[in-house]
Amino acid sequence: MRAPWELAGMPRDTAVAVGFSGGADSVALLALLAERAKTDGFPLLALHIHHGIRGAEADRDEAFCRVFAERLGVDFCAVRVDVPAWAKAHGMGLEEAARELRYRCFADVMAERKIPLLATAHHADDNAETVLFRLARGTGLDGLCGIPAVRKTERPEGGMVVRPLLPFTKEDILAFCRARGLEFVTDSTNREPCCARNILRLEVLPALERAVPNAAATMARTTALLWQDADCLDGLAAEWLKTHCRENALCARDLRGLHPALLGRVLAEFLGGCEAVHIGAAEALIASGRGGSVTMPRDRYASLCGGILRVLPNLRGEGISEPVPLCEGTLALCDGRLTVSVQEAEKCRKHKKVHSLSTTHYINRSEKSVIINQFFWRGLRDGDRIRMGTREVRCAALLQAGGIPATVRKHLPVLCDADGAVVWVPFAGRGDAEPTEGAYAVTLTLWEERTDRQDKGEDRDVRNQSGY
Amino acid sequence: MRAPWELAGMPRDTAVAVGFSGGADSVALLALLAERAKTDGFPLLALHIHHGIRGAEADRDEAFCRVFAERLGVDFCAVRVDVPAWAKAHGMGLEEAARELRYRCFADVMAERKIPLLATAHHADDNAETVLFRLARGTGLDGLCGIPAVRKTERPEGGMVVRPLLPFTKEDILAFCRARGLEFVTDSTNREPCCARNILRLEVLPALERAVPNAAATMARTTALLWQDADCLDGLAAEWLKTHCRENALCARDLRGLHPALLGRVLAEFLGGCEAVHIGAAEALIASGRGGSVTMPRDRYASLCGGILRVLPNLRGEGISEPVPLCEGTLALCDGRLTVSVQEAEKCRKHKKVHSLSTTHYINRSEKSVIINQFFWRGLRDGDRIRMGTREVRCAALLQAGGIPATVRKHLPVLCDADGAVVWVPFAGRGDAEPTEGAYAVTLTLWEERTDRQDKGEDRDVRNQSGY
Repeated sequence: MRAPWELAGMPRDTAVAVGFSGGADSVALLALLAERAKTDGFPLLALHIHHGIRGAEADRDEAFCRVFAERLGVDFCAVRVDVPAWAKAHGMGLEEAARELRYRCFADVMAERKIPLLATAHHADDNAETVLFRLARGTGLDGLCGIPAVRKTERPEGGMVVRPLLPFTKEDILAFCRARGLEFVTDSTNREPCCARNILRLEVLPALERAVPNAAATMARTTALLWQDADCLDGLAAEWLKTHCRENALCARDLRGLHPALLGRVLAEFLGGCEAVHIGAAEALIASGRGGSVTMPRDRYASLCGGILRVLPNLRGEGISEPVPLCEGTLALCDGRLTVSVQEAEKCRKHKKVHSLSTTHYINRSEKSVIINQFFWRGLRDGDRIRMGTREVRCAALLQAGGIPATVRKHLPVLCDADGAVVWVPFAGRGDAEPTEGAYAVTLTLWEERTDRQDKGEDRDVRNQSGY
Repeated sequence: MRAPWELAGMPRDTAVAVGFSGGADSVALLALLAERAKTDGFPLLALHIHHGIRGAEADRDEAFCRVFAERLGVDFCAVRVDVPAWAKAHGMGLEEAARELRYRCFADVMAERKIPLLATAHHADDNAETVLFRLARGTGLDGLCGIPAVRKTERPEGGMVVRPLLPFTKEDILAFCRARGLEFVTDSTNREPCCARNILRLEVLPALERAVPNAAATMARTTALLWQDADCLDGLAAEWLKTHCRENALCARDLRGLHPALLGRVLAEFLGGCEAVHIGAAEALIASGRGGSVTMPRDRYASLCGGILRVLPNLRGEGISEPVPLCEGTLALCDGRLTVSVQEAEKCRKHKKVHSLSTTHYINRSEKSVIINQFFWRGLRDGDRIRMGTREVRCAALLQAGGIPATVRKHLPVLCDADGAVVWVPFAGRGDAEPTEGAYAVTLTLWEERTDRQDKGEDRDVRNQSGY
């Protein structure tokens, strides 16, 4: 067995907390780590979580764990949590809540005691179950990589989770316990074929082992190979994105040149935190070669306009219900996601462009009074048209071609002159003409949310973590 | 269902042979294709193989198939083969022999009747079984791509195999047969949990469907995604190889710069037709940074010498048992894999270098009689040493450092002068000095086998074909 510090690439004396339920797996892990701790000299803590379910059985397990750790001479710590209450409060299933709360407790104790490593007893059968589950539920290559041997914790203070027993099967572990005369407790709920996990453990995997001996052990080697493939493709996609993404925008022509396997990964990274269905929609948009938009999770949309793909925040909240006279200064709309501002063009040009998603319209009229308080903002209406050269064009059609979806269009303001004619539709009509002296600049800014692309390095680990 | 010609990217009227066993799957496929043939206008042939096993049941099946096809108005053809005899003659298992012989018959009939397309009735459950089987037996990403919807046949005259029913589950197919009142026969040997395939079909897959409904249908979508990933990685590896392979040699430093996922694929392609264990050995050789060699299948070895990786044929058959005087002309050794030749250096230099694996030694003595019939060839002996500048070096050590393995060394000839001193060890000592006027060139050529790298495009399909 490789030591936790080895797996994590840390110094030999790095302290380790062991998730210790008292089952055969964690008993074997704790016994092995206690031996290793003597030669390597790392501090070891057996960390037991009492989930507040399974009544007397859980109390028995905690007592067993305390005694077991004491006999090994390993520090012991038990934390009691109330999984049912947490599950109810957060609208989660019991199993999901137990997992979430367990890892939170682990993280809290590790932070408090300054322990950088958590070792859990996941083994080859757990890995095989995870892979089968994901395969059956629908997953890409990432999901088939199974349970990672090493991953970062989700906590900002760092720390790693390691699984030294992953190469070993349940049978290996039971044989080890028998050989050493190690006692362990059994969680009775694991024996009932009540949920997908248990059917996989109790029926699918044993049948698979009957069909192909050593299936679980073999799958552990396979997932390690798949991990390399996934890492390679993710790395290529990230590299491509780094060299092709300019001001949070991608060129559709570049995207169309990508292999489908890389295109999917580039889009997943670029669009950020979305599902296969969103990536598929974005792929279709890019393939179509026409402008347009598709909705994304977290109230955003992807817009393809003029061959450029962007992710923009959707608009919500108040647009403009009543006409508002044009005034110097700034007007905030749609919960602050949209601002319109007016200033002298000279001042505007002295500033750096606020944001790549700003659009600016210049009004080349020298008399301030002709503009201020005469021009006015109002919400876009269905029948609005704007003069483009010699012909009139529907404003909605202009915006649609510009990749602005209907949900955003209904919030957008248009600028009208004193006669009530639309003179500017942000993102679409008549913007960005060159200003003459004394002109005024009317700027619309759409504020992007932070895309969190910097944090994506950790997402990979999180995607691949066990469902346990 | 997509038509065969659609899947294969061929014209609408491309003729189709259907592998028609009379089971529910092929009955559904034939019925669907018979309808489609009417609208698309492609000729259709129902092709039944009688395997010469299962006695009366097989006769019944053939009769059923004939009547069924006649009723649909589809041409019918039955071919009788003797699987047990073939299996015995080729040392194969019954199932493997049946598959091999079946596809041979398909190909023969297709060639004879000029039918370019073979449609088989593989469905989503078959695909799921294949994926589970490969996952349990150990496979890389390629194996997890499952049964391809389209692949080339192995026959040189071309043709494609297509599987239009892959997106549909067994249940879908049975429901279709019920709805249309279609009868079918059942192969009784499919019901016995006797082999891995049947355990997968009868136990693993049903349990997996209990744990996760629609598992097989979901896996069909997953394998399509994995196919893209595999295709992308294979493409990148092939591209890399194309730009980095010079004269059938690769630079180890270049290889060390590759991502492990690409390195494995580049080596698989470069080494040609080898197993994971050979690729692993070659990777270790490259990582070591030292010269050496590892054995490869088909009597070859990979040699790393001076930072250059090559695949060379092993030597077998007769080397030199008795000393042979140096003569003008050519001497063939080791079943013709090795030739040594002598000619005037000027003539040698006028020729293009025969082969990148040739090594040449020049003897700068002007009197022909001093060389011819005085110098002689003999087999390399254990204690042989050669003078290198001021010191003597063991010949075997020189060859070993040059990546020539022991199995090759024992066949190699050395050249001795009239006094019996070793003057040249091919691949290692004293070769390639510049010739003076009137010098003689002694050339050793190691003939490579054809690497078949040109044909590798088809290998991909072959690797991924169903085990059926």
